[in-house]
Amino acid sequence: MENFFYVQPVPVDFGVGKLNTLPDILKDSNLKNGILISAPSMIRNGIAQKIIDQSEGRITTLFSDIQPNPTIHNTDACADMIRKYQCEFAIALGGGSIIDCAKVACFVAKTPYPTADFFSRKRPVNKPGIPLIAIPTTSGTASEITTVSVLTDTENDIKAPIGSDYFYPTYALVDPELTVTCPPSVTAISGIDVLAHALEAYYGKKHQPLTDLAAERAASLVFEYLLTAYHEPDNLEARAKMSEASVTAGMAFNLTQTAAAHACSYPLTQDFDIPHGEACAFTLPSFWKLNSQSEPETERLHAFSQRLGFKDAEELADRIDEMKKEMGLRTTLEEIGVKTEADLDQLVANSFAPNMANNPVTVTKESLKALYSELK
Amino acid sequence: MENFFYVQPVPVDFGVGKLNTLPDILKDSNLKNGILISAPSMIRNGIAQKIIDQSEGRITTLFSDIQPNPTIHNTDACADMIRKYQCEFAIALGGGSIIDCAKVACFVAKTPYPTADFFSRKRPVNKPGIPLIAIPTTSGTASEITTVSVLTDTENDIKAPIGSDYFYPTYALVDPELTVTCPPSVTAISGIDVLAHALEAYYGKKHQPLTDLAAERAASLVFEYLLTAYHEPDNLEARAKMSEASVTAGMAFNLTQTAAAHACSYPLTQDFDIPHGEACAFTLPSFWKLNSQSEPETERLHAFSQRLGFKDAEELADRIDEMKKEMGLRTTLEEIGVKTEADLDQLVANSFAPNMANNPVTVTKESLKALYSELK
Repeated sequence: MENFFYVQPVPVDFGVGKLNTLPDILKDSNLKNGILISAPSMIRNGIAQKIIDQSEGRITTLFSDIQPNPTIHNTDACADMIRKYQCEFAIALGGGSIIDCAKVACFVAKTPYPTADFFSRKRPVNKPGIPLIAIPTTSGTASEITTVSVLTDTENDIKAPIGSDYFYPTYALVDPELTVTCPPSVTAISGIDVLAHALEAYYGKKHQPLTDLAAERAASLVFEYLLTAYHEPDNLEARAKMSEASVTAGMAFNLTQTAAAHACSYPLTQDFDIPHGEACAFTLPSFWKLNSQSEPETERLHAFSQRLGFKDAEELADRIDEMKKEMGLRTTLEEIGVKTEADLDQLVANSFAPNMANNPVTVTKESLKALYSELK
Repeated sequence: MENFFYVQPVPVDFGVGKLNTLPDILKDSNLKNGILISAPSMIRNGIAQKIIDQSEGRITTLFSDIQPNPTIHNTDACADMIRKYQCEFAIALGGGSIIDCAKVACFVAKTPYPTADFFSRKRPVNKPGIPLIAIPTTSGTASEITTVSVLTDTENDIKAPIGSDYFYPTYALVDPELTVTCPPSVTAISGIDVLAHALEAYYGKKHQPLTDLAAERAASLVFEYLLTAYHEPDNLEARAKMSEASVTAGMAFNLTQTAAAHACSYPLTQDFDIPHGEACAFTLPSFWKLNSQSEPETERLHAFSQRLGFKDAEELADRIDEMKKEMGLRTTLEEIGVKTEADLDQLVANSFAPNMANNPVTVTKESLKALYSELK
């Protein structure tokens, strides 16, 4: 009998067109003097300005100087602006990078210290920041309901997660309509990341009954709707189901953390420049097979696969590869630029982040090299 | 495409023996000068004293003067004690009645008003009470994670729910070991109540994707483990699964509310003295059949039934009756004391609480009378 600790403090307000309810949410919460933290693209398309206009003066400040992989300079600059204008709440409107930056900046702003102090663990994250309403514009990271942000310290060349219960946004407003403008390549990469979150949450050692439910639901939605969202960007039903998949997978991996496929993704992104979701998906079918072929999870992963309509775990894994190919994502070492034995050894050597230990089957350098070598 | 609002702010700390971690939880949260709100049975069996002893002085006050159906006098007396000793937090250890009383008392104590003012809606519940750690000793109400308390105003002869987001406990500590001493009759009645929560959450009009998952999981656990928990009170696995079922069903019906079977339960309890869970279960199979035979939920309820291993929705409904009979719960009008046409008319007339409108199939006095008339 297993013990578990389940928590998900962020309310999820979900629905097509829900962005239009933001003014009422601000009014009902009596939030004033807020900062909108967003992406340049949201300023160009006019959505940021529309939100400011409709806020009836409640949003006073705008920050959008955030890199695709947000740096601790970005969070510091954002925190400085919050301090300077004494903002009392924040809205993050954007993809994972924007929300990740906002989560940390909202906290840092309430301290006299720079992000580096917390990123380096020199100081603890030990109190709440200003309230944050997170509004995702992609279906992928689920950053709107998780404790974690991934930041980069460019000076020390470190890209790493920083997590705290104090990073939970106060409110997640999930409007699938915002994802309609995602280009197919982003839909593919962020959508396959959702599948990686779901499957890794399911097989990860830290899985628990309620995360299992969320993971299975999220995976089934991805298998059913991702290709439609990819081929038909305007298909609002597919977009809504992918948004639901993303936030549901987030409820799972926020507690279970990720496992081997995510551990392998870090050097693929850092050293071989493969976007995060594609990097996670690169080894995902292999680990699904590996974990389903070895105890302790064989039976559970086969049953999961069958409930999702596959003959067995292997067929589920193969389906991931088919989907990847259909969406132009890479499936071989050669395609991702791992061309020499030295490349492969480097990749293997750098794949052992802490979440590798959350994989149910122990992964060694030897077994990982063998697994990679199959990806020809 | 449906919108939904999902929220479950109470962390669930679940596991056999978890009660032993309470001293650490109090220490980590730096909680002091607390009140233990519990049942006389928990004082007799020594568990209340053990908790006080292990709290290292953090629990200073004890309140246990609570009736099985807690009254607004009980909550007032409890609130008075909190005020008098200026308690800073509370622990509720008991069944639904104890936790229901504690939820309201923790709030009322922070106001200068009596419970009646809030129970009558004269004043709004509009701020948090003192923090409350809820520790259930039965598997049934899931009061430890819901917004609602059911109270009785004896002077005006009103038994009714009172709900608020400010009634959420701060923390739910669910230790299935505490339910081992539940006698079979309580196990039966509270366990079948869990099934009613799950099934009503599933077919209720306000169901949403995440509550559907929780409801299905909870129902499958009840079908698998309730009879074992009933026949083998010491079977800790069955007890743990029923505790899990209870809290999981709570995550569903806390948001969806209940529907027709619960609406019908109120006069069965008030006028015919049938315990709450048994009263809910009395019409549950009938409403499961009714709702599965009529749009809009026919297909969904059949698919649900099949995923749980039944041939169809009817077989699921019949299984509920079999379980009830096996546990000595009543299944006919005669058994529950509805003997005359006048009794039946009275029962029907009093069955239209607001949650009746949450049933997917519209229920009329005529259709309800016909439904009851089948229960011979």
